[in-house]
Amino acid sequence: MAQPLRVALAGLGTVGAGVIALIDANRDLIARRAGRPIEIVAVSARDRARDRGVDLTRFAWLDDTRALGQRDDVDVVVELIGGADGPALTLAREALGQGKHFVTANKAMIAHHGLALAAEAERLQRAFKYEAAVAGGIPVIKGLREGAAANALTRVYGILNGTCNYILSTMESEGADFAAVLAEAQRLGYAEADPGFDIDGVDAAHKLSILASLAFGSRLDFEAVAITGIRQIIAADIAQAQALGYRVRLVGIAETSPEGSSTAGLFQRVHPCLVPLHHPLAHVAGSLNAVVAEGNFVGRLLFEGRGAGAGPTASAVVADLIDIARGELGPAFAMPVAALEAQPPAPAGERRARAYLRFSVADRPGVLAEIAAAMRDANVSIESLIQRGQTPEGGALVALVTHEGPERCVADALARLDGSPSLLGQPMWMHILDV
Amino acid sequence: MAQPLRVALAGLGTVGAGVIALIDANRDLIARRAGRPIEIVAVSARDRARDRGVDLTRFAWLDDTRALGQRDDVDVVVELIGGADGPALTLAREALGQGKHFVTANKAMIAHHGLALAAEAERLQRAFKYEAAVAGGIPVIKGLREGAAANALTRVYGILNGTCNYILSTMESEGADFAAVLAEAQRLGYAEADPGFDIDGVDAAHKLSILASLAFGSRLDFEAVAITGIRQIIAADIAQAQALGYRVRLVGIAETSPEGSSTAGLFQRVHPCLVPLHHPLAHVAGSLNAVVAEGNFVGRLLFEGRGAGAGPTASAVVADLIDIARGELGPAFAMPVAALEAQPPAPAGERRARAYLRFSVADRPGVLAEIAAAMRDANVSIESLIQRGQTPEGGALVALVTHEGPERCVADALARLDGSPSLLGQPMWMHILDV
Repeated sequence: MAQPLRVALAGLGTVGAGVIALIDANRDLIARRAGRPIEIVAVSARDRARDRGVDLTRFAWLDDTRALGQRDDVDVVVELIGGADGPALTLAREALGQGKHFVTANKAMIAHHGLALAAEAERLQRAFKYEAAVAGGIPVIKGLREGAAANALTRVYGILNGTCNYILSTMESEGADFAAVLAEAQRLGYAEADPGFDIDGVDAAHKLSILASLAFGSRLDFEAVAITGIRQIIAADIAQAQALGYRVRLVGIAETSPEGSSTAGLFQRVHPCLVPLHHPLAHVAGSLNAVVAEGNFVGRLLFEGRGAGAGPTASAVVADLIDIARGELGPAFAMPVAALEAQPPAPAGERRARAYLRFSVADRPGVLAEIAAAMRDANVSIESLIQRGQTPEGGALVALVTHEGPERCVADALARLDGSPSLLGQPMWMHILDV
Repeated sequence: MAQPLRVALAGLGTVGAGVIALIDANRDLIARRAGRPIEIVAVSARDRARDRGVDLTRFAWLDDTRALGQRDDVDVVVELIGGADGPALTLAREALGQGKHFVTANKAMIAHHGLALAAEAERLQRAFKYEAAVAGGIPVIKGLREGAAANALTRVYGILNGTCNYILSTMESEGADFAAVLAEAQRLGYAEADPGFDIDGVDAAHKLSILASLAFGSRLDFEAVAITGIRQIIAADIAQAQALGYRVRLVGIAETSPEGSSTAGLFQRVHPCLVPLHHPLAHVAGSLNAVVAEGNFVGRLLFEGRGAGAGPTASAVVADLIDIARGELGPAFAMPVAALEAQPPAPAGERRARAYLRFSVADRPGVLAEIAAAMRDANVSIESLIQRGQTPEGGALVALVTHEGPERCVADALARLDGSPSLLGQPMWMHILDV
């Protein structure tokens, strides 16, 4: 059998230990599929003493992570440290510069430095792979880069953050409010102690910007993603959505429209959405992820699976290693970086959709008239409206769904109500996924 | 830019015309992604005069399909003729023998001759690719061959025939019987004039045997697939399933169990199943396809999309061409043919599951007692039973669900009832997908 593919592993948290466990468990099968063995030869992490449940004594240990990229006995460096900059980025540059292939699960680093790293990998004819960075074990990077490669993709969207989906699914099944479910998720280890990256939508936005670049052949543009998280969602929003035949999901969506259209450019947004029950994303529950891609010949493709955790993420990392062992080293973003097109961000204003709006209002005469007047003056047509119940702020709840219309009109209506003493707290605006 | 990849196309039905239309529509994008243009240079089909909606005058026309494989100006031959043997097989052998890469959508040919063709392609270091042969536009061959390659897969199953799924979905939504819906499907072009390959489960079995080989690293063994189609399903079966919280789907399922277990070997079956509403396959409606793969690290992966039609199938064919243009030529069944393991067929008898059984019975005293006694004597425990309504044969309908138990007991019970004058027509046995 051919020479083994020799791997250095940086970062030995849950995922790093999972990669070691996977290669141990499936060693022979991997060798049959890859055409040669895949062997870890060196590792590096912060704490050498910690028990990770795997035997590390077989591997060279390096205190200096960067030095992993300098070893002559290494063909591929796998980076599982995390963080957009710092040691992860230093290692990426060092490894590629030393002629190693590079595999990472680090969506933040790719969102910020992916194009530069991909260009460097191309120049040196080395692989830069990152299946594990988006949607965990689901092979969606491969699905877009290769499986759907014959298509002009017009839209890619999905549920990209398992923590948010777990929280929203649990709020739905238990009728609980956000804070209580978050606290429980943290206790169970489904949410980080510092959950901001997840629940504020940043993690999903990192992933979305990567998918958009791959899908549309556009230059990755994380800064252009409009981001809203799930902190403002209350139990009543989910109940209202249910009553209307929807489920609430945090959806990342990217679309590209041709020049000359009113929505021209690259549109990227992470936002809580009402997903109709007949749509497959409505049935993605718990910590699962799912990605939908729409192509001009293939139609709608759906990929679903576990978006995080040691096993699924290790599965994606080792899939990249098998690709490299097989000699499949092509460009990171499906085409050379120079062939990616810079697309201007598309403004949201002209997008036409139905909207869900929820207000906590003071329970006194005239408030409903004030809201209705703002809608009328902004040219927003109301399809249905309900006033009921108590909000966390102690007022009444007004929830409405608009007819289809431009988003700028909804923004205008909300601006007209901004600062009104009738409103207790910020209004909640969710988009309705009508696809 | 590099030299174009030059393609010869055999078969100009819907899919062949779709491939030409796709390459015309997405030419520039494909060249950016593939690193070089993909160009059709020669075509062959039965009828030169037929209008296919695409301009064929650009291509060399060959009356002799086999001669496509002999042209010096061709790098890849795409076979879209169909049929397990005959001209398709002749062309495959000729093309590979002449050193061409070979791409096909022909599941029947792969199910019968795939290993031999793959071995020949390996020997000659040429690609043998067939993404379009299973589940149309869904990149499930790539998903198993590469995306899930790090996993020991234990089970792969799915909805592999769009015609059957369309018929079952329509029977469900319209409460109609099989024959009426089939006739309507034929009128609309969703079912062939000779629908046997689809509705008797043969087409799904072809596809399942391919998936099983890829997933488990086992030698493809189509002859070992147990096949039951959907002809015997009546509207009342679907209504009963709904009442119990299930939908009826034709499911192809393949599992592998280690030596020494009571279900050791490779189990492959295509059979109508009751799928619980909470399972994603229950929501795969109309002519869609979906495949689930379960791996020891990744957990459950789901791929869903359009399983047939010109656009989706062409998308898969051209994805294979892009792979070839990128130089990704690896073994057809994820590993060299010599590395595939021959696995003995696993008998169904020891499989434990719940079963749905439906009898059309003469409407007279003692019939229910006869059925109940057969169940008792075969050690089948009944979970629920309902007797009602009229069957097409003019009798009463008895539908029951068993508790979990070995399938051999259910087979025994049915054998005990075989030939009983109380039964009008064959009993219907559907498996319950409890996953």
